[in-house]
Amino acid sequence: MSVAQPPLRFLLAAAPQQWEGRQVLFLQSSGHNSRALLSYDGPNQRLRVLDEKKALIPCKRLFEYILLYKEGVMFQIEQATKQCSKIPLTVAWDPLDIPDNSTFEDQYSIGGPQEQITVQEWSNRKSARTYETWIGVYTAKDCYPVQETFIQNYTVVLSTRFFDVQLGIKDPSVFTPPSTCQMAQTEKMSEDCAW
Amino acid sequence: MSVAQPPLRFLLAAAPQQWEGRQVLFLQSSGHNSRALLSYDGPNQRLRVLDEKKALIPCKRLFEYILLYKEGVMFQIEQATKQCSKIPLTVAWDPLDIPDNSTFEDQYSIGGPQEQITVQEWSNRKSARTYETWIGVYTAKDCYPVQETFIQNYTVVLSTRFFDVQLGIKDPSVFTPPSTCQMAQTEKMSEDCAW
Repeated sequence: MSVAQPPLRFLLAAAPQQWEGRQVLFLQSSGHNSRALLSYDGPNQRLRVLDEKKALIPCKRLFEYILLYKEGVMFQIEQATKQCSKIPLTVAWDPLDIPDNSTFEDQYSIGGPQEQITVQEWSNRKSARTYETWIGVYTAKDCYPVQETFIQNYTVVLSTRFFDVQLGIKDPSVFTPPSTCQMAQTEKMSEDCAW
Repeated sequence: MSVAQPPLRFLLAAAPQQWEGRQVLFLQSSGHNSRALLSYDGPNQRLRVLDEKKALIPCKRLFEYILLYKEGVMFQIEQATKQCSKIPLTVAWDPLDIPDNSTFEDQYSIGGPQEQITVQEWSNRKSARTYETWIGVYTAKDCYPVQETFIQNYTVVLSTRFFDVQLGIKDPSVFTPPSTCQMAQTEKMSEDCAW
């Protein structure tokens, strides 16, 4: 498959609709990587993100996030204390998928001989004269998410890598906020340490 | 394999010594991704990097770089004009490999069911109280490079993804600078546009 004869998005498989996995999210503004377990529920437009404790960041409170896009609300729960914040979710649901009108950018293998997967890059670029603000890397066959990158002013502002993807949601109760969220505060808790 | 029982680096395969592939390099200072073809020659400590024209960056001169670490010299050749700069290479050769004293950080799959590879993350972290400045992601079996990340002050300063890795160097003459380099200038050429 060459760039000269790009595949058409609607001929490809759809990305999985319900899955669980892990992510590493890189935020340009902080320069940090943060790791989390992810439960993705496309049909119900909800996400659950559970911070993973990793040595990458010197001091960080660990949170659980439950994002319910249909209700327009996000719960932020501190893992240690279960302290809960309920915050309006003002952004629209953006599925982890390749939209039908996407532009095919590239296809390549990750790994090496006898130990590789083939992935494709798609973007929201509309012509040779405009530049993309989104690039999605998905596996070529079953369209598993590998990486999503968002770009502003030609600068990578957010990049998320996905891995350990497994189909289905093992325990749908992960989308139910704990009881401490019934009396939730309305201010987002800082991710930094208390000191 | 769990983090509680980390594998020992010296029990694993060595990374390939001579290979060609592609890379996407992300520089925190610019916020840009740049793509290139890469020829990697470990035994002779040399690299050849050929910028790939991609739509990600609005205007950029395309260069070829030949880095000869044993001679301590880098050639920068503009692809269009063959204009050549010869620049001292003051950094030591750092092989794309996992050093024997590395710390095992994580193992995970990229892709999804029936379409995945298993990779491992290694770092130069020495204890739970110091933080890593390097993270290498390599495939679990044959140790193909997938991603290298360098960190300063807890900030990702440089991250390179590798793909389309093929073993061997097809044409060793790629490490020979063109004739224009015999009368090379000594100043590095800017990667930005003339305007």
